[in-house]
Amino acid sequence: MKRIIVATLNNTAGVLNRVTGVMARRRFNIESISVGHSEKEGISRLTFIVNVENENQTEQLTKHLNKQVDVIKVLDITEDDVVERELALIKVSCNSTNRMEIFGFLDPFRAQVVDVGKDTLIIQIVGAQNKVDALIDLLKPFGIREISRTGVIASVRGTKRQEKTNKLLAY
Amino acid sequence: MKRIIVATLNNTAGVLNRVTGVMARRRFNIESISVGHSEKEGISRLTFIVNVENENQTEQLTKHLNKQVDVIKVLDITEDDVVERELALIKVSCNSTNRMEIFGFLDPFRAQVVDVGKDTLIIQIVGAQNKVDALIDLLKPFGIREISRTGVIASVRGTKRQEKTNKLLAY
Repeated sequence: MKRIIVATLNNTAGVLNRVTGVMARRRFNIESISVGHSEKEGISRLTFIVNVENENQTEQLTKHLNKQVDVIKVLDITEDDVVERELALIKVSCNSTNRMEIFGFLDPFRAQVVDVGKDTLIIQIVGAQNKVDALIDLLKPFGIREISRTGVIASVRGTKRQEKTNKLLAY
Repeated sequence: MKRIIVATLNNTAGVLNRVTGVMARRRFNIESISVGHSEKEGISRLTFIVNVENENQTEQLTKHLNKQVDVIKVLDITEDDVVERELALIKVSCNSTNRMEIFGFLDPFRAQVVDVGKDTLIIQIVGAQNKVDALIDLLKPFGIREISRTGVIASVRGTKRQEKTNKLLAY
């Protein structure tokens, strides 16, 4: 089963290596990973999607990660009510004949053309993983030259996660 | 100086750990990193932004990465004509008084509200790094609760990179 894990890290050299080390040693199957600055100076937020067999495995992974130096907090937010988004740039072959056909696909996906070449288009799409997958499937017959995907990031809706954490702290 | 490096990797356990190991041992300052599926089954595309002092350092890094098992190709695409994009989810505090003011910021950035809570909004923005930074700066006075950024991905416009590679192969 697919789990979304979010970790906050001190932005130091080597912390990402320690985190990926835990995943590699335990042979976790990581689908995507993305790391960027967070709302606090010097703190990065890492989001990854992992395929596990059962919840025990997730618990083990988060426990091991929490023990690492410079890892501040690790949370499994799969069960929370989250906004889950991924960005992809898809470079697809096209010619004057089928260019308009491709344009017709984009609106329902809220995708945009960000570059038009002589015989290529670069299409930008944002959405949940399955939405991005669906557009890629549609574009395949035209010939896909390159796909760049960021991996999923997620944010918990409203203030639910904070309330949950506060409750844990209260007892 | 900031360099955008793109690497294609075999999607095997441990490859990400080896790549981040090279960065950690040489104390490279990685700003962001994102990994996702590429256009080929079993191949992932990793994009990262690194701050280096000179071009020699970049060359060293790409050489070292190229030597790693399961790393297929590493390219520095900074000088190419690229489309560079990042996705961010920004959770910001708001109340009935300033909600409309925040909404007014979003259109020029082509940002969207993807969740409205009692006293929070989640805003989604896609753009180059500096565009995302600019919106975050504007939202700071309202109180930012959480920022999730994917890190930059990039795609070379048109078919330029392919032509360049072909030229190299021809001589």
